[in-house]
Amino acid sequence: MSLIVQKYGGSSVGNADRIRNVARRVAAKKKQGHKLVVVVSAMGDTTDDLITLAEQITKTPNEREMDMLLSTGEQISVALLAMAIHELGVKAMSFTGPQVGIITDKFHTKAKILDINTDRMQKALAQGNVVIVAGFQGKTCEEEVTTLGRGGSDLTAVALAKALKAKCCEIYTDVDGIYTADPRLVPDAQKIEQISYDEILELAALGAKVMHSRSIEVGKKFNVPIYVRNSMNNHEGTLITKESKQMEDVVVSGVALTDDEAKITLFKVPDRPGVAAKLFAKLSDANVNIDMIIQNKTSTSTTDISFTVFKNELNRALAVVKKAAQSLGAHSIHHDSDIAKISVVGVGMRSHSGVASKMFGCLARKKINIDMISTSEIKISCVISGKKGKEALRAIHSEFGLGKKSK
Amino acid sequence: MSLIVQKYGGSSVGNADRIRNVARRVAAKKKQGHKLVVVVSAMGDTTDDLITLAEQITKTPNEREMDMLLSTGEQISVALLAMAIHELGVKAMSFTGPQVGIITDKFHTKAKILDINTDRMQKALAQGNVVIVAGFQGKTCEEEVTTLGRGGSDLTAVALAKALKAKCCEIYTDVDGIYTADPRLVPDAQKIEQISYDEILELAALGAKVMHSRSIEVGKKFNVPIYVRNSMNNHEGTLITKESKQMEDVVVSGVALTDDEAKITLFKVPDRPGVAAKLFAKLSDANVNIDMIIQNKTSTSTTDISFTVFKNELNRALAVVKKAAQSLGAHSIHHDSDIAKISVVGVGMRSHSGVASKMFGCLARKKINIDMISTSEIKISCVISGKKGKEALRAIHSEFGLGKKSK
Repeated sequence: MSLIVQKYGGSSVGNADRIRNVARRVAAKKKQGHKLVVVVSAMGDTTDDLITLAEQITKTPNEREMDMLLSTGEQISVALLAMAIHELGVKAMSFTGPQVGIITDKFHTKAKILDINTDRMQKALAQGNVVIVAGFQGKTCEEEVTTLGRGGSDLTAVALAKALKAKCCEIYTDVDGIYTADPRLVPDAQKIEQISYDEILELAALGAKVMHSRSIEVGKKFNVPIYVRNSMNNHEGTLITKESKQMEDVVVSGVALTDDEAKITLFKVPDRPGVAAKLFAKLSDANVNIDMIIQNKTSTSTTDISFTVFKNELNRALAVVKKAAQSLGAHSIHHDSDIAKISVVGVGMRSHSGVASKMFGCLARKKINIDMISTSEIKISCVISGKKGKEALRAIHSEFGLGKKSK
Repeated sequence: MSLIVQKYGGSSVGNADRIRNVARRVAAKKKQGHKLVVVVSAMGDTTDDLITLAEQITKTPNEREMDMLLSTGEQISVALLAMAIHELGVKAMSFTGPQVGIITDKFHTKAKILDINTDRMQKALAQGNVVIVAGFQGKTCEEEVTTLGRGGSDLTAVALAKALKAKCCEIYTDVDGIYTADPRLVPDAQKIEQISYDEILELAALGAKVMHSRSIEVGKKFNVPIYVRNSMNNHEGTLITKESKQMEDVVVSGVALTDDEAKITLFKVPDRPGVAAKLFAKLSDANVNIDMIIQNKTSTSTTDISFTVFKNELNRALAVVKKAAQSLGAHSIHHDSDIAKISVVGVGMRSHSGVASKMFGCLARKKINIDMISTSEIKISCVISGKKGKEALRAIHSEFGLGKKSK
């Protein structure tokens, strides 16, 4: 009898019918003889509604009180799901994060899990219960309620799977799994059966918004197999697991397109040691996240520096850069919000050469100019014109043979 | 520097504006130099909305899960009130019932408070915080969430006042205090300045729905002075306290009218010892609450038995009575839902005679027939025709000189 942790997101428990649907799935799994721990998010818009309430009171809510407020959303879901499971004649008990012994640090609204005491869950499981746990929340050693920030319920599920030595962690969502590219942009994108933690981490960072990176990182660290599945059907989903020999045969697992970055260029900066260090230190002080950086020597005494930031941080970045440009002696500043980043990801790259040239060649044949390039061991990203993004995505997806075989 | 416990009901925190209003009141009291513990109910219709959610899932919700669900309502209120108090520059911390150490028995949805560990509240108070506590809830020794049933938030407030040795407990509601009669029925009803626990217990049982009897009983047991006040103005309100000499000068404190009972009569029951015992044991087994009982010997061998039950238990009671009537050998059964009960209450009755005859005389002059009479040390109740209820109320209120002196 194996122990399985399941997690159902907010849209999967968005109303009474959907909660009953989840209850049926849980009951069926239980009747197969599994021990089950089920992590649930807040129903549909509940969290947004609670945030709206807080905004009616104050623009700067205290973070401790925000955690008290928001943690009620998941508590409502778990109680209702327990009731729905009871209706099917299956024993179930709901618990809050604090009740179930999820101990976190003191950083309200973005707490990190420090420890999980599984005694209470083990006892309830031993009594034959499905254990239902409110996701996204925990408590400090001082019994203060905390929440785990974005992707918190996924994190709860993966961390519980680790603590309980579960066979696997099933993440139920409203898509069938992870795809070779966004199916809304690439119609023949194919569902991936197995993918490694590292690949999904690159894809998550690149905007494949199926799971938050924090949960994948925990899964990787403790080697928890994670299934991403659809709560509305019985399709197989995607298994996220440690790298296997078999995966290396696939050179490229997926292609991702993101358009949430903007590029800033400083022209003709006097080329002295420490110039870049000074600039990026100032940006870091202003809490601006930098993604890609290139520096290009334009003459014996000057250099151009380009980098990308998230669009929602562009204004903040420009303010810092304008001030810094003067003291650095830069000639001029330019920025461009109309850029896209296209990336190919695959652990097979480690053992296969020629991926970069194949990608660049494909873009060249399409007459798409490459603006910036960055690479990691298992990823190649190119910044191109924003207008060309979707065309590039489809061309590269096809170039690496990722489309459905039937087509 | 004295410690005061305040309690604000659901309508007092029904929306953001009202929460801000409560925050201003709390902040003003704090700035007067008081230590403050504030108990809050769920916002307006929140509890009803949560019950509706549960009803969409099941007709027979598990009580443990109901407590998990319903306790979120107060948790939302306390977090929002803390934020609103922060906006006014005053330190405040919110706590759930479980967090604040309210230990109850295991009877979910109607738990009794066993103990309160005040350490955490004392610590937060010592740090200069207003302590805000979610009403209506606690936890068992096994860390299970419980709720306290009807009037639970009042009970939380009075119990905290006792545990913290507070100077008094202020119950804020949407009326100015306790009146000599329901002002909607008796226009010249007068607000009572001081009333004893015993009188208010009689009045509460009689339908003056300002506070639930459980809280008054706790207040009486531990001698906690309770102020009933309006959260929307600064009027003085009514002080509920232990009996004083001064109170004895007032013969009748208030008059109450209730119409939620029905009368059942068994005619010509053979008059043998144990007949009444048998009948009422069967009603008790069926969980029917009996209020008044009269037995009237009609001949040497038979007796008539009349009693009143709550209207919502009438059908259940009739089913039992019909079955019992046969085995007891009663001649016939009659029931009447159109009755009213009018009561006068006052500790002065103990030392003043003639209250009953004054009341009966008043009803006689109005040609209102008395159906049943019951009395306690400080109360006289008469059952009369339902149609005559309001007229009787106004007449008796005037008879005892309870109207506003200016009129």
